[in-house]
Amino acid sequence: MLIIGELINTSRKAIKEAVANKDADYIKQVARDQWEAGANYIDVNCGTMVHNEAEIMEWLVNTVQEAVEAPLSIDSPDPKVIEAGLKLVKYGQPMINSISDEKERFESILPLVVRYNSKIVALCMDDTGMPETGEDRVRVAKSLYRKLTEAGVPDENIYFDPLVKPVSAVEKAGVEVLESIKLIKLLYPNVHFTCGLSNVSYGLPNRKVLNRLFVVQTMTVGMDGYILNPTDKEMMGVIYASQALLGQDSYCMNYLTAHRKGIYDI
Amino acid sequence: MLIIGELINTSRKAIKEAVANKDADYIKQVARDQWEAGANYIDVNCGTMVHNEAEIMEWLVNTVQEAVEAPLSIDSPDPKVIEAGLKLVKYGQPMINSISDEKERFESILPLVVRYNSKIVALCMDDTGMPETGEDRVRVAKSLYRKLTEAGVPDENIYFDPLVKPVSAVEKAGVEVLESIKLIKLLYPNVHFTCGLSNVSYGLPNRKVLNRLFVVQTMTVGMDGYILNPTDKEMMGVIYASQALLGQDSYCMNYLTAHRKGIYDI
Repeated sequence: MLIIGELINTSRKAIKEAVANKDADYIKQVARDQWEAGANYIDVNCGTMVHNEAEIMEWLVNTVQEAVEAPLSIDSPDPKVIEAGLKLVKYGQPMINSISDEKERFESILPLVVRYNSKIVALCMDDTGMPETGEDRVRVAKSLYRKLTEAGVPDENIYFDPLVKPVSAVEKAGVEVLESIKLIKLLYPNVHFTCGLSNVSYGLPNRKVLNRLFVVQTMTVGMDGYILNPTDKEMMGVIYASQALLGQDSYCMNYLTAHRKGIYDI
Repeated sequence: MLIIGELINTSRKAIKEAVANKDADYIKQVARDQWEAGANYIDVNCGTMVHNEAEIMEWLVNTVQEAVEAPLSIDSPDPKVIEAGLKLVKYGQPMINSISDEKERFESILPLVVRYNSKIVALCMDDTGMPETGEDRVRVAKSLYRKLTEAGVPDENIYFDPLVKPVSAVEKAGVEVLESIKLIKLLYPNVHFTCGLSNVSYGLPNRKVLNRLFVVQTMTVGMDGYILNPTDKEMMGVIYASQALLGQDSYCMNYLTAHRKGIYDI
């Protein structure tokens, strides 16, 4: 299971302010909090800083690495910004967030994936737009898989993101994601999956309940990575409990450790 | 989704006392509480009353039916007791809980299933004992399916219970259940499933968390019936939310109704 901590993102007000004030202490604290809460990767995203995104990416990457020896997920639509971040990564295998099968994006990001031997989040979308059905997602995943592996990217570096949409708008939006995971897993048993969650509950009340249960549903069909807030104890508790039930936690050790830390006393 | 309310069971102290005191008002209240909380069937089980089980079954069935016009699940290992209950059932299609592929049990219960055109909980066990693997469960389900349908029982009356065992004892206990549901559903797309939940969490802390998440996991692979306490608002909230995410709730109507009733304000 790969937990990618999502909190260092300049679309969040507190991070935007910390960046504006060059408040390294705050950024470091957010990095440490996520790492100590169980994140395996720390995502760094400053995509809202359109004028000096590369410069801010460099500052954020250096700042985070002064706080934790964590592998980073370098998150930007701009290949120049991604490379600015990748060049500075010191710990472990970097992750690029993200590539897609849109022609321009694919061609500009692929060389970075290869050069830096990174994990890669592969969005199941292409130039025809956002996927609707499970079949749409599988079609794009097949194309991405073929092109990535032909370029030498190993299966286990690929994290397909099926792109989650709101069930409030499309009743079968959740089911289509579950179906796509099952089908892609049948085709390529060694690839991984990841997704953001909050879209699924857009427009509905009690969104945290829905987001947590969608983690359980997607884990049940084989998703093994999430970009989320690892300091959300209830969410992390759900993940540990779900792993124990799925036989992914020897002797329920992680579950029992989480229990002893009081994660379920909420 | 079939919710079978489990609370009227003489293994529970309060029910045992109410039976001893012929406290019909208490039994009626428990029946009404479950019905109003969303149960579709009310289970009636007095298996602990070994000396006069049939007589008590009759009293319970009549008492429950004075309170609610609910279909009943008649729950006993003894075919005579089951028939005593079935004879009195007034509302809807009865359910028998349960048959198995143990020779004696199968042969004694089958005639009742046919005569009363009941739904039937079919436990995936035979004379070799409790199932271990998913394959064990599928083997027994195949045998039960063949014999039940040969006797004229329609697919949609069959509720396979894969028999849930503790993940604390056997790491893959949950996964084996999930696998068996997937396989049986592939073989017989029109049958249903049901199970009790509490075994899965036996021996572990925060059992309610595990039980709820196992509902979500089993629903994700197609389970569509549970014997549980429907007055447990958190559990019912999990079921409604899970249905909304699985596209089983048009316009999220049930989920939104549950939200307005405050089921998520816990």
